[in-house]
Amino acid sequence: MTVITEANKALAKDLTAKLTLGEKIAIVHAAGLFRNGGAERLGIPSLKMDDGPMGPRAELHNDNWAPLYNTRDYVTYLPSGSAVASTWNPDLARATGEVLGEEARGRGKDVILGPSINIKRSPLCGRNFEYMSEDPVLTSVQGVAYIQGVQESDVAACAKHYAVNSQETDRLDVDESVSERALREIYLPAFEAAVQDGGVLSVMGAYNLVNGTKCCEHRQLLDDILRGEYGFDGFVVSDWSAVRDTKASAEVGMDVEMSVTPNFDEYYFAEPLKKAVEAGEVREGDIDVKVERVIAVMDALHMLGDARANRKPGRYASLGHAAKALDVARESIILLKNDEGLLPLDETKMTRLLVIGANADRIHSNGGGSAVIKALHEVSPLLGLNGELGGNVDIEYVLGYDAKQVNQDESWQEESLENSKGSDAKDEGRAKVLREEAVAKAREYADAGNPVIFVGGLDHEHDLEGRDRTDMRLPYGQDELIEALLEADSNTILVFVAGSPVEMPWAGKAKTIVWNWYAGCESGTALAEVLLGRVNPSGHLPETFPIALADEPAHKIGTFGLEGHVDYTEDIYVGYRYFDTRRIPVLFPFGHGLSYTSFAYHGIDVRHVGDEIRATFTVENTGGRAGKAVAQVYLGLEGTGEDRPAKELKGFAKVELAAGESREVTVTMPVAKALRYWSNESEAYALAPAANVFVGDSVEDIRLSGRVA
Amino acid sequence: MTVITEANKALAKDLTAKLTLGEKIAIVHAAGLFRNGGAERLGIPSLKMDDGPMGPRAELHNDNWAPLYNTRDYVTYLPSGSAVASTWNPDLARATGEVLGEEARGRGKDVILGPSINIKRSPLCGRNFEYMSEDPVLTSVQGVAYIQGVQESDVAACAKHYAVNSQETDRLDVDESVSERALREIYLPAFEAAVQDGGVLSVMGAYNLVNGTKCCEHRQLLDDILRGEYGFDGFVVSDWSAVRDTKASAEVGMDVEMSVTPNFDEYYFAEPLKKAVEAGEVREGDIDVKVERVIAVMDALHMLGDARANRKPGRYASLGHAAKALDVARESIILLKNDEGLLPLDETKMTRLLVIGANADRIHSNGGGSAVIKALHEVSPLLGLNGELGGNVDIEYVLGYDAKQVNQDESWQEESLENSKGSDAKDEGRAKVLREEAVAKAREYADAGNPVIFVGGLDHEHDLEGRDRTDMRLPYGQDELIEALLEADSNTILVFVAGSPVEMPWAGKAKTIVWNWYAGCESGTALAEVLLGRVNPSGHLPETFPIALADEPAHKIGTFGLEGHVDYTEDIYVGYRYFDTRRIPVLFPFGHGLSYTSFAYHGIDVRHVGDEIRATFTVENTGGRAGKAVAQVYLGLEGTGEDRPAKELKGFAKVELAAGESREVTVTMPVAKALRYWSNESEAYALAPAANVFVGDSVEDIRLSGRVA
Repeated sequence: MTVITEANKALAKDLTAKLTLGEKIAIVHAAGLFRNGGAERLGIPSLKMDDGPMGPRAELHNDNWAPLYNTRDYVTYLPSGSAVASTWNPDLARATGEVLGEEARGRGKDVILGPSINIKRSPLCGRNFEYMSEDPVLTSVQGVAYIQGVQESDVAACAKHYAVNSQETDRLDVDESVSERALREIYLPAFEAAVQDGGVLSVMGAYNLVNGTKCCEHRQLLDDILRGEYGFDGFVVSDWSAVRDTKASAEVGMDVEMSVTPNFDEYYFAEPLKKAVEAGEVREGDIDVKVERVIAVMDALHMLGDARANRKPGRYASLGHAAKALDVARESIILLKNDEGLLPLDETKMTRLLVIGANADRIHSNGGGSAVIKALHEVSPLLGLNGELGGNVDIEYVLGYDAKQVNQDESWQEESLENSKGSDAKDEGRAKVLREEAVAKAREYADAGNPVIFVGGLDHEHDLEGRDRTDMRLPYGQDELIEALLEADSNTILVFVAGSPVEMPWAGKAKTIVWNWYAGCESGTALAEVLLGRVNPSGHLPETFPIALADEPAHKIGTFGLEGHVDYTEDIYVGYRYFDTRRIPVLFPFGHGLSYTSFAYHGIDVRHVGDEIRATFTVENTGGRAGKAVAQVYLGLEGTGEDRPAKELKGFAKVELAAGESREVTVTMPVAKALRYWSNESEAYALAPAANVFVGDSVEDIRLSGRVA
Repeated sequence: MTVITEANKALAKDLTAKLTLGEKIAIVHAAGLFRNGGAERLGIPSLKMDDGPMGPRAELHNDNWAPLYNTRDYVTYLPSGSAVASTWNPDLARATGEVLGEEARGRGKDVILGPSINIKRSPLCGRNFEYMSEDPVLTSVQGVAYIQGVQESDVAACAKHYAVNSQETDRLDVDESVSERALREIYLPAFEAAVQDGGVLSVMGAYNLVNGTKCCEHRQLLDDILRGEYGFDGFVVSDWSAVRDTKASAEVGMDVEMSVTPNFDEYYFAEPLKKAVEAGEVREGDIDVKVERVIAVMDALHMLGDARANRKPGRYASLGHAAKALDVARESIILLKNDEGLLPLDETKMTRLLVIGANADRIHSNGGGSAVIKALHEVSPLLGLNGELGGNVDIEYVLGYDAKQVNQDESWQEESLENSKGSDAKDEGRAKVLREEAVAKAREYADAGNPVIFVGGLDHEHDLEGRDRTDMRLPYGQDELIEALLEADSNTILVFVAGSPVEMPWAGKAKTIVWNWYAGCESGTALAEVLLGRVNPSGHLPETFPIALADEPAHKIGTFGLEGHVDYTEDIYVGYRYFDTRRIPVLFPFGHGLSYTSFAYHGIDVRHVGDEIRATFTVENTGGRAGKAVAQVYLGLEGTGEDRPAKELKGFAKVELAAGESREVTVTMPVAKALRYWSNESEAYALAPAANVFVGDSVEDIRLSGRVA
């Protein structure tokens, strides 16, 4: 783990003292769309930044957003944040970070703009695919491992977006009203962990306002909490154009201003800041502190002086990186339902297979906003199935629905709009033709006992930076198609590739449902391996799948997706903290994920040892094949005298077991985090005197319980 | 190795006896652009064929050449035939074949149209990149291993193009006049080995005429030699539209007619053949034999009845396949010159690197004619260098020359013509600007002691099916640029990516020259590894690089590239057999290839043991790093009373040695092949009574000599 040492800070102080005001100003604002200015005179280069988190973005011109169109910025397309979280495997989060760090460093970058660790407050947020979870502990554990992985390569990770950037609607100006308790328990802990456990070297200030103040001007968030409480000594970079006032941002711990326009000299932290200092409106000391933070990070990254010889070189677009992406994808796929054991498919008995659905034949690396990737390759589900099954199974493919028929009212990219044009009546006619063709085929396959796989879901027209979805329904008439398919073949296997949950009104009729996030360059390979049983699925949901959007607390209790102002009235009751505590039925609960084998849990023992709580229990593979269980430890805090969620995730372990194997597992949780809560009464953190302890396979599937005091 | 058994033949005979004439006719001609007809009634499916040999071609419509445009026909782009030959490593030829077979089978194919084992007679042949070598023994050894690899997957390889398909000009109609001796010693032995050692299941009849008769009507080639002498019992498929006369082709061993037009019922072997049989002009027995051959192959491939359950499934577009392509590419790169040890580059001392040349930033899988590949990925040289070197070396790229400026008079594909339009004067101006920019940069780098790499060569506008080059010069003004670069920086490292040799008028001034064939999806990675010394180069030339085209025997003695008729007057004196025997100076001799280490050869012992000749000697790695030597054994036949080449390759061994390691190597050659020659006097094969034996690092760099009698 790269950390900022006292030596880094001393050097930064020395160097800063030698800089002119102009040089300091250059360092704290952009000199290109993805770099700040340097001070060549003193050997201080620009910090080169790049969009992540699924791989370093393609090379653009310094001063406009057109790509350079060469062959040397192809990269490994990595699984999305949701996919990484879904593995519940910190080793794989670290591996993802390691690849990202090597690729970013290989591409010559100093800062990679990830991970995205905002909490998923509503299923509609357009950027949810980048985010990890509705839960702060899962986000923290995976985020920390990811950050450590990135920073192994002398590249700074950038924890973003600080803070409470939970919606895209009006993202530049929306004010999020959120209680101190929800901030401290839900929205900030992943950043706390990123700093204290991950040693993250940079943090991105979000666009939005929190409780009336812009994040990039927010003294409480930037100074009191991030630096004061968490001890962050890296630098804060603004989201691109999030700084909107020179003095207000200069006087808080907002260090480097980046933006989307090429008028670099006119940035708030450029000439205007220089003039403000010269006029005595901003103290030069405030700028010095910013510059010192940036230089200290640069020194920690071996960017200065003789240390450069020791800087890790990185590498990218290698077969080894693709292999790691495949490892992650394999554990990210979630078997949501498999009532009659239709999966895994029996290859030895299969000669024909019908695949239906636009997402089977679609790649996703080429969209999504700033997370867009120029992938060296991406395996679609159809390619994965064909490639793995080979020539003895005749795979017929039918589109089933047309992913281009939707009309969109807004678009992050011009091209998305182009794709959506067309006459409604014509589209409807085409939809019907496609649906009927698919259903007839499905019936034919079902009659002959041949399997039918539907691959639908969302795409980056829906999971998209800059725009939230307006509902949770599947687009392109998929619900109607699925109903008809299940009617024609009740054994239809439903696979979804998406970045956010969808309503599944037909879920009761479906026997088998598989969930696949945007899972990187080998996503289709991993999916095929899971469907064929070559890989036993072990992904678990990092967020609740509600029955209907109307059930979601952000929508039912709070407000979401409004312009101007949004109320987080649901407070800490986000995701399962709401559904589980209020006993609201869900479609699939947080932490849910099936396996082709089964697991039993035995003999819980919970102890308070020093500053740790240790939950020890035995996990047994009671089925017929090797698999990986995700043992989840939830605590229900007791004796606080305040309203609390029934259960809160505090730790977990991914346990690999051969068929029939048992293993004793200990999940260790620091008392200071496990029993901590924000007391509304005392307006401070407090420790609960006791807690019920639950071990489960999901938040609803509790297998063991104990107590700790 | 899949071979046709007596049981396969018996089943074929039984089934054929049950077929109607109409069903037989269906089987011997196309029912789609890449499949013949089947006989569903008796469970005989179509044979699905696909273009190779660098990977199965993208999926087209059954009856037109438009692609299907889906995501499921991406494949692994494999090194070209020249690259495979250049490894001098049969294990890698086999690995290439294994991947190709698995990919073809995975894509549902039964026959893959490769390897291309025609002998390279002139450097101008447009299809040379697909072919292996100017030498029949090297082509045989690599071709046999390749075929065996392919057929491991229950897919038929197809040895093509039978025979003497050495030029593209007028390829449908040209008559190649070639002596019986040259046929038997140069142009046919690789097909003989493909049948007898490789067990190849299909052979493709070429377009051209040999000695006045079309290959697909050639009784001597198809019946007397291929089946009579070689014992081939697979089937012969015509090149696409090579059949031009029903009766003439039906009466010889030309079994399945394929063509380029969708009027399948009008093919010579369709309705016209049916009518000819019904009219008694062609015997039905002639058709039966063809059908039996096809069915026997199908049975050998486990395509019929219960055996289908045992058919290998194949797979494609996998990371494992890409890794094998990388293995092959690594050994295919040839270090032609390294006078002052500029290579390998010292990464530890490098901070800046200049790369010049259009081929650095270009991929090649997407061209070439029927060998075109829809590659899942391809690493360009620039991506390979950047990806491997990572972020600590600043790689600047300058185009240097414009690969689109050439004017072409003919084109295999419409698009190539589109690329070539433009005003000559404007093009010349642009060429000058690019050249001057590159030269100025090179001078700047040289002055600072930073390395400069030029990556030029050819592309599939020149190495292209259907068209021969008209000269051997580098296109796009590269010679002028290279001269200027060597002037500006005498240390400029010259790298060429190409499928055929080029004249190098500046070769004497260049210190370092690296040759890279079209080497598959990981070509750029392998190149970078070689330049950086992570891989020690071990490729050796599979063909002579002449000083000038005018020196080439096909041009100096024979004729080449004419329409209508071509004379192979040079007889067996093709390639090094000419240059070496006539002592004509060459640029780089056959078999040449440098290493970053050095090898010594000691103590030759040659014995005639039973039906083998065994040459035993010791190879020593006398340098400072591990490497692979290619020990080449040439024989100079003595006592034949006829004019003979001074040396002919008869065997070789690739020997991996650690620094300082010595190993005794025995190269075993069957007497029947090693001493065999075609006697002009007796018009038959004869065995030479004695031979001089030479062991060398190239045909010109002989280290040991002995004698055998």
